[in-house]
Amino acid sequence: MTTASNKRLLLAERPEGRAVKESDFRLEAALVPAPGEGQVLLRTLFLSLDPYMRGRMSAARSYAPPAELGAVMVGEVVGEIVESRAPGLSRGDLVLAYAGWQEYAALPAKAVERIDRASLGDLPVSYLLGVLGMPGATAYFALDTIGKPKSGETVLISAAAGAVGQVAGQIAKLKGCRVIACAGAADKLAFVTGELGFDAGVDYKGKDAAALAAEFAGHAPNGIDVFFDNVGGVTHDAAMMTLALRGRVIICGVISSSDRVGQPDTGTRWNRQLLVKRALMQGFLVGDHRARWPEFRAAMGEWLKSGRIRYREDIVDGIEAAPRAFIGLLSGANRGKALVRVAR
Amino acid sequence: MTTASNKRLLLAERPEGRAVKESDFRLEAALVPAPGEGQVLLRTLFLSLDPYMRGRMSAARSYAPPAELGAVMVGEVVGEIVESRAPGLSRGDLVLAYAGWQEYAALPAKAVERIDRASLGDLPVSYLLGVLGMPGATAYFALDTIGKPKSGETVLISAAAGAVGQVAGQIAKLKGCRVIACAGAADKLAFVTGELGFDAGVDYKGKDAAALAAEFAGHAPNGIDVFFDNVGGVTHDAAMMTLALRGRVIICGVISSSDRVGQPDTGTRWNRQLLVKRALMQGFLVGDHRARWPEFRAAMGEWLKSGRIRYREDIVDGIEAAPRAFIGLLSGANRGKALVRVAR
Repeated sequence: MTTASNKRLLLAERPEGRAVKESDFRLEAALVPAPGEGQVLLRTLFLSLDPYMRGRMSAARSYAPPAELGAVMVGEVVGEIVESRAPGLSRGDLVLAYAGWQEYAALPAKAVERIDRASLGDLPVSYLLGVLGMPGATAYFALDTIGKPKSGETVLISAAAGAVGQVAGQIAKLKGCRVIACAGAADKLAFVTGELGFDAGVDYKGKDAAALAAEFAGHAPNGIDVFFDNVGGVTHDAAMMTLALRGRVIICGVISSSDRVGQPDTGTRWNRQLLVKRALMQGFLVGDHRARWPEFRAAMGEWLKSGRIRYREDIVDGIEAAPRAFIGLLSGANRGKALVRVAR
Repeated sequence: MTTASNKRLLLAERPEGRAVKESDFRLEAALVPAPGEGQVLLRTLFLSLDPYMRGRMSAARSYAPPAELGAVMVGEVVGEIVESRAPGLSRGDLVLAYAGWQEYAALPAKAVERIDRASLGDLPVSYLLGVLGMPGATAYFALDTIGKPKSGETVLISAAAGAVGQVAGQIAKLKGCRVIACAGAADKLAFVTGELGFDAGVDYKGKDAAALAAEFAGHAPNGIDVFFDNVGGVTHDAAMMTLALRGRVIICGVISSSDRVGQPDTGTRWNRQLLVKRALMQGFLVGDHRARWPEFRAAMGEWLKSGRIRYREDIVDGIEAAPRAFIGLLSGANRGKALVRVAR
């Protein structure tokens, strides 16, 4: 095993103040590592591509330390144990781990989370990185702890067809809300209003905040009660203009300013609007809710198995495809949760 | 009585997109009105001057309807009943009412709140418009419901020597917090650090956000846990840069942009910072907490009588002095709670 090739992608350059380029990553073929005592050798099945990775590529201070230059790019994977030197973990076990952008990783037992395959039923293992994983939990806990949507309220979701947005909108529908989707392509909006049952769709492309706000207001005559903001920027401004009394704004992502890590994001201070509307705006990080993960997995698993929540994935094949797919994700080219199928 | 003169100030012009001028108000001598059946005639003792009045002068939509052009300017007063045609209210009763900028008003019984003079003890009746009234309740409920300061935390107060700020800082001190004051004059800072016991003072004048943030950080090495924002603008930006993990930002006032009612306030979107710090920002309006007013009055009365909270007032004499004093309040010229002594 240790003589086989382990293709992996290293962080070669930090994209500071500019868009990510494929050359920011370097592909190399290393040896498959041998697991040490207490370790397992993991073969990656799927690598998750997520907007947070853009922040890790920068040296700017954030909620997590930056990825190291010259080291394997960070990322979560679902994989299979191919060799175990750790008690309680066996060859063939399905696990989740932050193994990075590579085909194989030797990891200590405490760095992997064993998943009971039976609990998935017929659901694809890739869901563990999406609707049943970090993005799904983000939608679930951000609505539960900040958004608190009530039946009859209007919920606006930006990046509505993305890994988090499609789940957030469907949960809001289950709660009896009217859901307005915002996205940057007609087919994305057709997907969420057609297949997922969202009530209205607004394409933000080529519109300023005032024009966008007018469209939002057209779909939300009483204002937006909950704004699930994955994007920031002009969409944020437009939503703030359309906020209902006691509106709640979940700051979940800032993908529109993903190339401005560490730099100020010039726009509008919405202090007066927050005051007039007695509105709440709060930053959300899913890692703060680890203790409630079992509750989330149980609820979401049930919703998926009963068909009440559906999920779209955008899968590319082979670890070599990761940089281009990641760049596409940052510019909105993906159609659903972005994943790399690293091995079958 | 009805042939005596009632001096009053009318809203003559709306200051849209510019600073308030004295000529925006028109002084006139009307007849003292005769109370109708079910009404009382009120003689104003003190008129409160508050930043919210700037918003009412504008036609822009807000949490309350604008003051009417040509009508008596709106405002809260403490006064004495000089004639009563309403059951349960008697000549000599002390009352609070939104009687406006005038010496006398005839009001329906339900528009006045009778105050038990004995409950004040030796405290001045003007406190009913300040530390025992709307500004004091603002400090009390905004900290209780949004800021939630805990012992050992660092609290930053802008407009720290103002009607709300001086109370907010003292409550935070009672909770065991370290309190940083921000204000625009050395004597204001000397007052709050000297007489009120705040821990540090920062003068914002002539500083940009980065310079101000560096000063805040010098006094708050672990960041700002609670920011009580009465001001907005550059001070807001600097505080956002200095926020601690899970910081809470109370949006209580926007006096720095008081001349920009209805216009966007250009600055920085702090979405990424809210996300990274998992921070909360929420607009506060004291009117939402009317049900808990008795609790507040009891607690604050006790603190005042025992000397644990002190309060500074800035009083001008005669209703004619109101416009100039109000303009001074908007530019920070006041030293403590701004009041007009209308009658002795």
